[in-house]
Amino acid sequence: MKVAVFRREHFNAAHRLHNPAWSDEENKKIFGKCNNPHYHGHNYDLIVKVVGEPDPQTGYVMDMKVLSDLIQEHVINRFDHKNLNLDVDDFKNLNPTAENIAVVIWHLLRKHIDPSLELKVTLYETERNFVEFPA
Amino acid sequence: MKVAVFRREHFNAAHRLHNPAWSDEENKKIFGKCNNPHYHGHNYDLIVKVVGEPDPQTGYVMDMKVLSDLIQEHVINRFDHKNLNLDVDDFKNLNPTAENIAVVIWHLLRKHIDPSLELKVTLYETERNFVEFPA
Amino acid sequence: MKVAVFRREHFNAAHRLHNPAWSDEENKKIFGKCNNPHYHGHNYDLIVKVVGEPDPQTGYVMDMKVLSDLIQEHVINRFDHKNLNLDVDDFKNLNPTAENIAVVIWHLLRKHIDPSLELKVTLYETERNFVEFPA
Amino acid sequence: MKVAVFRREHFNAAHRLHNPAWSDEENKKIFGKCNNPHYHGHNYDLIVKVVGEPDPQTGYVMDMKVLSDLIQEHVINRFDHKNLNLDVDDFKNLNPTAENIAVVIWHLLRKHIDPSLELKVTLYETERNFVEFPA
Amino acid sequence: MKVAVFRREHFNAAHRLHNPAWSDEENKKIFGKCNNPHYHGHNYDLIVKVVGEPDPQTGYVMDMKVLSDLIQEHVINRFDHKNLNLDVDDFKNLNPTAENIAVVIWHLLRKHIDPSLELKVTLYETERNFVEFPA
Amino acid sequence: MKVAVFRREHFNAAHRLHNPAWSDEENKKIFGKCNNPHYHGHNYDLIVKVVGEPDPQTGYVMDMKVLSDLIQEHVINRFDHKNLNLDVDDFKNLNPTAENIAVVIWHLLRKHIDPSLELKVTLYETERNFVEFPA
Repeated sequence: MKVAVFRREHFNAAHRLHNPAWSDEENKKIFGKCNNPHYHGHNYDLIVKVVGEPDPQTGYVMDMKVLSDLIQEHVINRFDHKNLNLDVDDFKNLNPTAENIAVVIWHLLRKHIDPSLELKVTLYETERNFVEFPA
Repeated sequence: MKVAVFRREHFNAAHRLHNPAWSDEENKKIFGKCNNPHYHGHNYDLIVKVVGEPDPQTGYVMDMKVLSDLIQEHVINRFDHKNLNLDVDDFKNLNPTAENIAVVIWHLLRKHIDPSLELKVTLYETERNFVEFPA
Repeated sequence: MKVAVFRREHFNAAHRLHNPAWSDEENKKIFGKCNNPHYHGHNYDLIVKVVGEPDPQTGYVMDMKVLSDLIQEHVINRFDHKNLNLDVDDFKNLNPTAENIAVVIWHLLRKHIDPSLELKVTLYETERNFVEFPA
Repeated sequence: MKVAVFRREHFNAAHRLHNPAWSDEENKKIFGKCNNPHYHGHNYDLIVKVVGEPDPQTGYVMDMKVLSDLIQEHVINRFDHKNLNLDVDDFKNLNPTAENIAVVIWHLLRKHIDPSLELKVTLYETERNFVEFPA
Repeated sequence: MKVAVFRREHFNAAHRLHNPAWSDEENKKIFGKCNNPHYHGHNYDLIVKVVGEPDPQTGYVMDMKVLSDLIQEHVINRFDHKNLNLDVDDFKNLNPTAENIAVVIWHLLRKHIDPSLELKVTLYETERNFVEFPA
Repeated sequence: MKVAVFRREHFNAAHRLHNPAWSDEENKKIFGKCNNPHYHGHNYDLIVKVVGEPDPQTGYVMDMKVLSDLIQEHVINRFDHKNLNLDVDDFKNLNPTAENIAVVIWHLLRKHIDPSLELKVTLYETERNFVEFPA
């Protein structure tokens, strides 16, 4: 009798897509305007899903306030109003595509959520482009 | 070759979160401002998902008008503009968390939907907090 | 060369519509299910508009962080997770319709905003019902 | 370590629901106002989901620009500002319910997406009625 | 001390843009794919704004339920699931652009709203194209 | 008998808020995390409003396709996937606050819109922060 609970948060960040192993021409060809060396940015919307059985005492799978605070501490404080390529260690050697950002967020949160609870993250880069991990 | 169909409805209700087995202090500590004895309220958005094979005669998994009428009759009429704690029998002995409301709605609808069709409900308490049952 | 700036905030509250000068029958007839004596509730979305000339030093009409903090202090802390009829003095003798809530919010904020700046509030009771003051 | 990527697109089209094997009375009874012989229409919102492992070189499961172009070429150009019953061959002998449109779109895209990638489509006929294939 | 109240409703309709005084080539050139002779369609979102002073007895500028019923009776029943060009007399000799539909709706409602109240309509043809009358 | 028409477009950009006449401490104090020297970014949503009388031949105040193309050519191509501070001449000596961006966009479009038509722009920096010019 498992229930899923979802919490939506957001952050604003700059990034560029770039593979340092490639020439500038290759980067331009593959990543197009997302490769702009001066960066561009997004309002990222993040939905965190946690699945488990509601506690009979509280009726909660997990206290949404606690979940919101965890996301604030481990994700929003780390990413919000930052340049993902320059300011966030996780992307020093990892291209900050929506796919990779979602995987990084999942690992940042996984260690702080009870292991008996399943975890999934959905990340909106724009209203039209979004990703989910794990699929 | 199954298809899922979804119908979104909404209702407005008051509630408070409270466990009568606990002291007032414990309730205040666990449920915070959601424990306000005078109640607070929400615009609940409800999405009902039904999964099955489309009927070759109609092209419908289930007539959305019929599904909408069922939700109106068995859920909206029961919950809309009500105090969930005081006016709705289902919560006489059950804390009206989003998790528990979703489970109650699922049971209210399950008996009126053809057993060959799978059923899932998603309930938005706010734009930022929502739940899904079964997960 | 005036610019308008807008800040959106939200709060969740319970209320009922009721005129104590009328009989129960009249109240029921005029306010319908909104008259439920046990209350119902809403997720209220509030948009505050401030109009003025941008400061040439900052490029701001008004710092949105300052505006957000003012709304938090004078409106959200007063209304969020409250029963408007029972917990909020402004509605002790005033029916908490969307119209009246918007007028109350405007007066709560007006004294804290520079008199050279115009002020307007929009209040969404639901996605389908909303009000604006002054019109 | 699979990730899902999603791309949202839209098109506007006219349609009517009708089963030519039935009498006008039966059609009217089953499909109601959706059977209007002069057609009605919708703004359809389409979300295409593709699941796979991100390419370590790009960090992409699939380039969203490529996915968007495929949807444009094979779906939007075929359906946008069209009468689904009269202008689109796929519905010459198939009732254009949301369920059937979603299945048709899935087949139109499936042949252009790498077979190692899973594919799912969600189609919104309105904000309140939507479908997903495969379920 | 005027307050504006707003009510959002919607309808789904087919239409085409066409000027019978012009050649087919001219129509095609000016209206593009909106000139498709087989029609296309939209989910129209309608917001009706009414401005006046709240009644001190009710706290209402106008009862939203009454406003919603008026829109239903005079606009939605006339336009919903219809072909605007063929089924709605107002467009027999008037091109159903968003601008013209908004003006027609305003006139349909004006006669049923108290003359002391100001009236404005906003019509969304899509999320990206919308109009307001009077401006 | 004027009608307003609105067109919504969007762009994604990086920026930072900074006044070069101030010390780093002052900038940090006034602009907070928006002063990050490595930039952050947003999905900007832009609504352009044009007011005039509908042409009796077309029923259009202004062809939305023409308006969309003008915005694309003069605003989106200039701002999208750019660093506003480094890549856009308009902000070489102007702080790219939402207020200033809106004023710049208005001037970029004003010269390309018929002088008989009124022009207004609304710019969303986030769902919660937006501006309008002229007010």
